Amino acid sequence: MSGFVLDARLAADTQSVMIVDNVDVRLANDSRYWWLVLVPQIAGAEEWQDLAEADRQRLFDLSMRCAEGLRTAAQADKMNIAALGNMVRQLHVHVIARHMDDAAWPAPIWGVGEGIDYQPEDARQRIMVIQGFLNQ
Amino acid sequence: MSGFVLDARLAADTQSVMIVDNVDVRLANDSRYWWLVLVPQIAGAEEWQDLAEADRQRLFDLSMRCAEGLRTAAQADKMNIAALGNMVRQLHVHVIARHMDDAAWPAPIWGVGEGIDYQPEDARQRIMVIQGFLNQ
Repeated sequence: MSGFVLDARLAADTQSVMIVDNVDVRLANDSRYWWLVLVPQIAGAEEWQDLAEADRQRLFDLSMRCAEGLRTAAQADKMNIAALGNMVRQLHVHVIARHMDDAAWPAPIWGVGEGIDYQPEDARQRIMVIQGFLNQ
Repeated sequence: MSGFVLDARLAADTQSVMIVDNVDVRLANDSRYWWLVLVPQIAGAEEWQDLAEADRQRLFDLSMRCAEGLRTAAQADKMNIAALGNMVRQLHVHVIARHMDDAAWPAPIWGVGEGIDYQPEDARQRIMVIQGFLNQ
């Protein structure tokens, strides 16, 4: 991760849950959703294609593990997995558990309404659940 | 692909470019974007996790090939790759070339404005380019 610095907006909008295989698994600071943001700690990466094949594969596998874990933990109606990066170019993958009664359903979540901060205890609980499935 | 039937909305909104490894690579009928929709021809699949590991890997690899091909063909400023499925549950992966002057930038493209149909010749040209990089 030589030279890697987390983007300032990602740093402000998310908090680290665990680093797995050089990927920072971060919880978005928006309690409306179980919403993870996966950031490979590789300087300069903006697209999946910018990763070496092994790194790309690890990021994909971890995205799948996060999706499966969140799906169960949140009893999601649908999982959304996306790498967009139009606002923040540093490569990051969103893994979001969606519910049919959530704030944005059925639209994508980005840009819909205002985020709602976690109560510290609620964030801690979610982080423990996520660490739990990542440690399995 | 026993029992697989393409979702009616996907059928209406996209056209097939090529079937690769049991995945239908389809062009969205919206000329504002170079926008592919990849549909694995597997009955009942709604999430990445619903695919057997080999199928999942093939879909991921093909998503990467499409992203790389579109990035070059469209001279994209950013690639967006996403599986959402909130409106159409049948598993499909969007691969979209974004430009900083496109109709939705920097927002995600879904639900922004009205799609603009292709002129038939323009669709044919894009399809040929896409078939070209898929055949490499």
